[in-house]
Amino acid sequence: MTNFDFSEKILALLQEKQYQNLQKYLETLNPADVAECMTDLLDDGDLEDKDLLRLFRLLPKEQAADTFAEMDADLQEKLILGFTDKELSQVLEEMFLDDTVDVIEEMPASVVKRILKNVDSDTRKSINQMLSYPEESAGSLMTIEFVDLRPGMTVREAFDHIRQHGVDKETIYTCYIIGPTRKLLGAVSVREMLLASPDTVLRDMMETNIISVTTLDDREEVANLFARYDYTALPVVDKEHRLVGIVTVDDAIDVLQEEATEDMELMAAMSPSEHPYLRTSTFDIWKQRIPWLLILMVSATFTGMIITGFETALASNAALIAFIPMLMSTGGNCGSQSSVMVIRGLSLGEIELSDALRVLWKEFRVSVLCGLALAVAGFAKVLFIDGALFGNAEITIPVAATVGLTLAFVSIVAKLVGGLLPMGAKKLGFDPAVMASPFITTIVDALSLLLYFSIASLLLGL
Amino acid sequence: MTNFDFSEKILALLQEKQYQNLQKYLETLNPADVAECMTDLLDDGDLEDKDLLRLFRLLPKEQAADTFAEMDADLQEKLILGFTDKELSQVLEEMFLDDTVDVIEEMPASVVKRILKNVDSDTRKSINQMLSYPEESAGSLMTIEFVDLRPGMTVREAFDHIRQHGVDKETIYTCYIIGPTRKLLGAVSVREMLLASPDTVLRDMMETNIISVTTLDDREEVANLFARYDYTALPVVDKEHRLVGIVTVDDAIDVLQEEATEDMELMAAMSPSEHPYLRTSTFDIWKQRIPWLLILMVSATFTGMIITGFETALASNAALIAFIPMLMSTGGNCGSQSSVMVIRGLSLGEIELSDALRVLWKEFRVSVLCGLALAVAGFAKVLFIDGALFGNAEITIPVAATVGLTLAFVSIVAKLVGGLLPMGAKKLGFDPAVMASPFITTIVDALSLLLYFSIASLLLGL
Repeated sequence: MTNFDFSEKILALLQEKQYQNLQKYLETLNPADVAECMTDLLDDGDLEDKDLLRLFRLLPKEQAADTFAEMDADLQEKLILGFTDKELSQVLEEMFLDDTVDVIEEMPASVVKRILKNVDSDTRKSINQMLSYPEESAGSLMTIEFVDLRPGMTVREAFDHIRQHGVDKETIYTCYIIGPTRKLLGAVSVREMLLASPDTVLRDMMETNIISVTTLDDREEVANLFARYDYTALPVVDKEHRLVGIVTVDDAIDVLQEEATEDMELMAAMSPSEHPYLRTSTFDIWKQRIPWLLILMVSATFTGMIITGFETALASNAALIAFIPMLMSTGGNCGSQSSVMVIRGLSLGEIELSDALRVLWKEFRVSVLCGLALAVAGFAKVLFIDGALFGNAEITIPVAATVGLTLAFVSIVAKLVGGLLPMGAKKLGFDPAVMASPFITTIVDALSLLLYFSIASLLLGL
Repeated sequence: MTNFDFSEKILALLQEKQYQNLQKYLETLNPADVAECMTDLLDDGDLEDKDLLRLFRLLPKEQAADTFAEMDADLQEKLILGFTDKELSQVLEEMFLDDTVDVIEEMPASVVKRILKNVDSDTRKSINQMLSYPEESAGSLMTIEFVDLRPGMTVREAFDHIRQHGVDKETIYTCYIIGPTRKLLGAVSVREMLLASPDTVLRDMMETNIISVTTLDDREEVANLFARYDYTALPVVDKEHRLVGIVTVDDAIDVLQEEATEDMELMAAMSPSEHPYLRTSTFDIWKQRIPWLLILMVSATFTGMIITGFETALASNAALIAFIPMLMSTGGNCGSQSSVMVIRGLSLGEIELSDALRVLWKEFRVSVLCGLALAVAGFAKVLFIDGALFGNAEITIPVAATVGLTLAFVSIVAKLVGGLLPMGAKKLGFDPAVMASPFITTIVDALSLLLYFSIASLLLGL
């Protein structure tokens, strides 16, 4: 069954006014699927705004909240505007606080006001606290719904506590043990407690060597910890090492996916997108792309200047012009190979800034090997394909040697630039992904041309 | 504390022969960290092979197995060669079966033989079964250590079962309910069981609408289900819907990370790497990169031919040559912007093949907007910067108009090609990521030049 089938069935039941069957059917679906069906049906014009509300009201309380949390901001806004105050507070009560905060961050001020009016004062305080963390921090990623236990509790008491307070917690499987001032002392898993005797005191069985993050840690680094250590939750502490929240693995996965997408977009010279491709308007996509295109177009002025500077030399050796695109694209490819590997290594934490010299040395060796192979292949290709095969008499052995030698040097220069610039960007506090193909290409393009014309001057005596 | 600090401390304790303190210290570390320290110490020449074995033998049984599972293949092989048969079977006994299979897949035949000799016959049968699944399938990703319950059990009986059989299971938190022929009937979480009365029968509380995957499903699609539905485990069934294994979230994260890295590498014209950058040899990196560089270099023959074809026209209007790099790089950037967004959308499941027309229509509208902006900016830049500012008398209004108009058409063509080719590749069963920047650029380069010279012929009467 695809989402398309889900949508079709929902629409059919809705149009036939079979609300009871529709309700039963909706209950069998996953919140993420229901949310997507609603979005698709609205997008295709099959569902009107009033039907959307009717559909949403058929969902049982908990599923309604989960579905709401999975929706796009514009769909959420539409629903909130249609909700009664009672409906709104019901949904908010069922949602996890980190999801509520995510909703609030996307809403216009009037809607935020209405949301804050419809939650109790404790929740409002927590929301305001969470809104104050920087956007890319662990604090903005964490949830405050976790199970905290005391070191003096027995396993039996811990289970009683979980039964009483665990219903609304985002995960119950890792429980944290805190001292009198809420300082984080240790952690214990439900698995260990199930296997232990009910009278064991938590203090005697808890793991005290636990990795925690602070509210201000970068969320990508936090997410990388999940990938490295196979956790399902990580505790978040404040500066005084007091437990203030937890990050769960589902949110970590979302961060890893978003960061990878963002890196790919930056590497292709685009500003990061906020919504899936098909749900982003033409104008928004244009805004992501056009500034970079303009900057890169203008910065290509240098390559033009270099060519203009050698115009007379080129006129006397017109065959050289034909190899300009090939040399530039090979340089660009060499550079982006290196930069992409270094960028990815940096973002996975496999490469540190302190590895700069090792990276350079490796890139240098690889670039010499690539350069040799390119030089030999390029020399032969120019001489035999462009020269002999196509019968171009202008292509002599010195011309082929010029192209081959340029390829060797271009490979070395491009790979060193491609390896170095992302690390430089990171050192200066920028996102290394910005230093991928397009910028590298612009720099390498200019360097390739300079190398080409210098070598041509030497070998051909231009 | 960084890994560097861990390594320093381990080395110091080892050199001072403080084995008891070293043992205590190792116990406080996470298996992933211990494995990395061992790798680093060996790489730096601080640790000899015999010390490696000594170090490994200090680890408690379970941590030893977990650490072993986290190591690179070459380190694993080194250790296996040093192990006694008894040590080897102890490590194998403690490891999860999916990890054992991962080890086997990387080992030479003689080591595989020794491993298979040192496991019991049931395990050997399971290993052989798992080795038979295709490399990129859910079957090769799953573990067979899961908790299976019967529908007639009560919650109390289920917990007793978990206490008896759950110790070695990869996760106990989602338990699967199977019928007499091992057909998957439903699932129940430990959370729900903790909150239910001990006498509740599982049949009455189990979730029967569960999403399962089959052994042959693609592992990237399986991993995407985790991202979409926030699961921590997913059941894997065979063709007869019998439960044969589960995939856990930690393995799904690894798949998502690996697939993103692979896409980025393909996008930058490299074959996917198998090890982290710094742990890959110069020669292996060269092998990843050089075939693509050679193919792309040779395919640039077309651009050379186009230029050669227009050589006489260019000679009479030498100013046109200077804009070739800029037009080609703008075309390349336009195309890779589109292709990267489409490739990422396809791999996240946000774009389906059936969306091809919607993608093309969106890219067309974006490309027209980008084309207009580029044309206006390009026209002005050529006229005022290259012409007036640098005092180049060859640059006339018709020349600037030629460049501007070419930019507009290049944007449209590049974005349509960039949007379409990845979808075409997917349709034909190739990885769409291959159709990113380098190939798109090669195609767009040739098209840009043809457009440029055609428009120049029209406007300048070449």
